[in-house]
Amino acid sequence: MVSKVKLNETNSTRVPIEALQAQLSSIFAKVGCSNRHAEIAAKVLVAASVRGVDTHGVSNVVGYSRSAQDGTYTVPQSTEIISESDTTALVSAGNGIGLISAYEAMEIAIEKAKKHGVGMVSIKDGHHVGMVAYYASMALDHDMIGMSMTTAVPAVRPALGAKKMLGTNPIGFAAPAGEERDFFLDMATSTVASGKVGLARRIGVPIPAGWAVTTGDGGEITEPPGGENDSWALNPLGNTREQGAHKGYGLAVLVDILCGVLSGGGYSASLDRGQNMSWVMALDISKFRPVDDFKAMMDEMIRELHATPPLPGADGVLVPGDPEADAMDDRLANGVPVENGQYATIKERAVELGLEVVI
Amino acid sequence: MVSKVKLNETNSTRVPIEALQAQLSSIFAKVGCSNRHAEIAAKVLVAASVRGVDTHGVSNVVGYSRSAQDGTYTVPQSTEIISESDTTALVSAGNGIGLISAYEAMEIAIEKAKKHGVGMVSIKDGHHVGMVAYYASMALDHDMIGMSMTTAVPAVRPALGAKKMLGTNPIGFAAPAGEERDFFLDMATSTVASGKVGLARRIGVPIPAGWAVTTGDGGEITEPPGGENDSWALNPLGNTREQGAHKGYGLAVLVDILCGVLSGGGYSASLDRGQNMSWVMALDISKFRPVDDFKAMMDEMIRELHATPPLPGADGVLVPGDPEADAMDDRLANGVPVENGQYATIKERAVELGLEVVI
Repeated sequence: MVSKVKLNETNSTRVPIEALQAQLSSIFAKVGCSNRHAEIAAKVLVAASVRGVDTHGVSNVVGYSRSAQDGTYTVPQSTEIISESDTTALVSAGNGIGLISAYEAMEIAIEKAKKHGVGMVSIKDGHHVGMVAYYASMALDHDMIGMSMTTAVPAVRPALGAKKMLGTNPIGFAAPAGEERDFFLDMATSTVASGKVGLARRIGVPIPAGWAVTTGDGGEITEPPGGENDSWALNPLGNTREQGAHKGYGLAVLVDILCGVLSGGGYSASLDRGQNMSWVMALDISKFRPVDDFKAMMDEMIRELHATPPLPGADGVLVPGDPEADAMDDRLANGVPVENGQYATIKERAVELGLEVVI
Repeated sequence: MVSKVKLNETNSTRVPIEALQAQLSSIFAKVGCSNRHAEIAAKVLVAASVRGVDTHGVSNVVGYSRSAQDGTYTVPQSTEIISESDTTALVSAGNGIGLISAYEAMEIAIEKAKKHGVGMVSIKDGHHVGMVAYYASMALDHDMIGMSMTTAVPAVRPALGAKKMLGTNPIGFAAPAGEERDFFLDMATSTVASGKVGLARRIGVPIPAGWAVTTGDGGEITEPPGGENDSWALNPLGNTREQGAHKGYGLAVLVDILCGVLSGGGYSASLDRGQNMSWVMALDISKFRPVDDFKAMMDEMIRELHATPPLPGADGVLVPGDPEADAMDDRLANGVPVENGQYATIKERAVELGLEVVI
C-alpha cells in the first residue's frame, strides 16, 4: 500500500538539521538570493522535512535553485505591496521563489493582526510555496491562528466533470494548544495529493480506486498514470456525487477565489505550469479572549478526540498535526532522513555550484 | 435514490414569498421577538426555502417558535458584544434564536470590513442558525466575500474513530460574480448532511454505503438509522483513510476551533443538544483590487468550469451555487413549494397562537 511507504534506515540517510539548513541556505545564496532570503527558503524546506512532509522537503532545493539560476524564477526578489489597508494587502511575489514570498506575506499578515486583530494577504505573480501549512503555522509563535492556501497546476476534475480543471489547491490551518500538541491541518482538496500517485508509480504499486480517472470517460484508474498530461485527472475529495464530490470541488474553487481571483493573479485553470497564487491570514486570539483560556479549551478538545473509541484495527484516533509532531519529535532528536537518491542529488548540486558539501 | 426526492406539485403547495414572510414574521413576533428580529428570522428561513434548501426552510418556524415560547430560547434577545477590536468581535447570542444572532453578527462583520477591510465575529451562547451559508451571502450586497461556519450536535465520527464526536459543522462561502451567478458554497464537513438520512428514513429508501456506520465496530449502515442516538455516526467527508477521511474530519475540527474554542462557547462534543456556536467573516474586495476586475475574472472562471466536458451520463458541470440559483429562479417566479404536511403544521401553529392565517 502506498501509505505504508516510509523512509527508513536502509533507503535514507539521517542528516543533522543544522547541516541541512546551512547547505540549503548556501545553495539558495549562490544562485542569487539575498542572505536573508536564502535562510528563509532553507528554513521552510527543512521545516517540511522535519515534519515528515518529505515530498515538500529539502530535496526541492535542487529544482528551485535551478529555476532561480535559469531565470524561471526571478532572484534576487522582493515582495512588493500593490495595495493595502489596515488589515489587508495585495502583494506581488515578483515571480521569485514562492517559499520566500509566502513567508514574507505571512510576516505582513502577522504584523497587521498584531495591530488590528486580523491580517490577510493575497499573493500574485507567485511560484510553488512548498508545504502550504508552514505559513499558517508561523502564527503559532505569536499566539495567533493561521490559515494559508495556494493554487496549483491543474490536476483535479470538477464534480461531474471529466477533465482536470483545478489544482490540488491545498489548505493549511494552525491553532495553538497549551499542554497538548498544536492543531495543524495540511490538506489537499483532492482525494489524494499528487505526490502519492507519483510515489506509487516510482515504487510500482497500484493506486486505490477513487484517486484518479481517465479524461473524457471518467474510467477508474488503478495503474499509476505516468507524468502530468491531459489523459487523466485526480478526483476531488468526496469523489462521487453521492459521497460529496461537490464539497471537495467547492473547496478547490474557494481556494482559487481567495488566491487567484482576489489577487488578480489568475485561477488555476488560467495559469501556466509553475505559476501559483496564494493567500494567508493571521488572527489574534487575544482580541477575542484570553489566550490561556483558549489554549486550555484546545487541550480539553484534543484530549477528548484522542479518547474516542477507535475503529477495529485502528491504533487510536489522531488529531490533525499528530503525524507531523511525531515526525518532528523523532527528527529533532535524530536528524532528518533524506532518501538516498535525493541525498546524493543535493550534494551533487552543491558541488556543481562550487560550494562546500556540509551534509 | 434519496437525491432524487424533490418537492413537486403533488406533495407540496406553492405559497407566495411575501405571504410566507408575513406569516413567519407574525409567528416570531407573537412568541416575543421584537418586530425587527421577527422580520430577520422570517427572512432567513424564507431565503433558505427560496434557494431550495427546504430542510432549513420555512417549516422550522414551528420548532423555533416553540423553543422561544417554552424558554429554551431566550426572547426578546440581544446580540451583546463581549470584546472587540477594529476587525474582530466576540459576541454573546444571549441564548436567543440562532438565526437572529448570526444575522446581527454578520452585520457587525460587514461594518468592520467596510472600515478596516476585514470583519470577523465569533458567537457564543448560540442556537441553531439554519442554513449557514445565508450569513456568508449577506456579504454579496456589499461587494464583499463572506464566510460562515457553525457547530452542530455531535453526529460525525473522527477519522479512525467509531463514535460520533463532531457536528456536521457546515461551512458557507460566498463571492460575487458579474454577469454569471454568484459563487455560493454551503457544505457539511461530513459525507452527507444529517437531513438526508432523516429524509431516507421518512420515505423508506436505503442509504448508500459510505454515509453512516454503527458505533464501536464501524459497521456499514444502509438501513437509515432511526433518530439521534449513540448507536450510529455519520462519516466525515472522505470516509476512509485512503479516500481522505482525515480531511473532512480536520475541517470539522477547524470549524469547532473558530466557532467554539475562539468564542469560548465550547466545541461540539462539549455542548448540550441545541447549543450551536458560530463564526462569520466579511472581507472587502475593493481593498485588494477593483471590484469590477474581480467580478470579470469570477465570470471567466465560472464559464470555464461550466464548459468542462462532463462525465458520461452527467448533464454538465455545475458551479457551487447553481442548484440554489435554479431553485431561486423558479421560486421567485412561482412561489415556494411547501411540503403539504409542513404547510398544514405552519398554519396550525399560526392558529394555535391566535394569528390570522395568511399563507
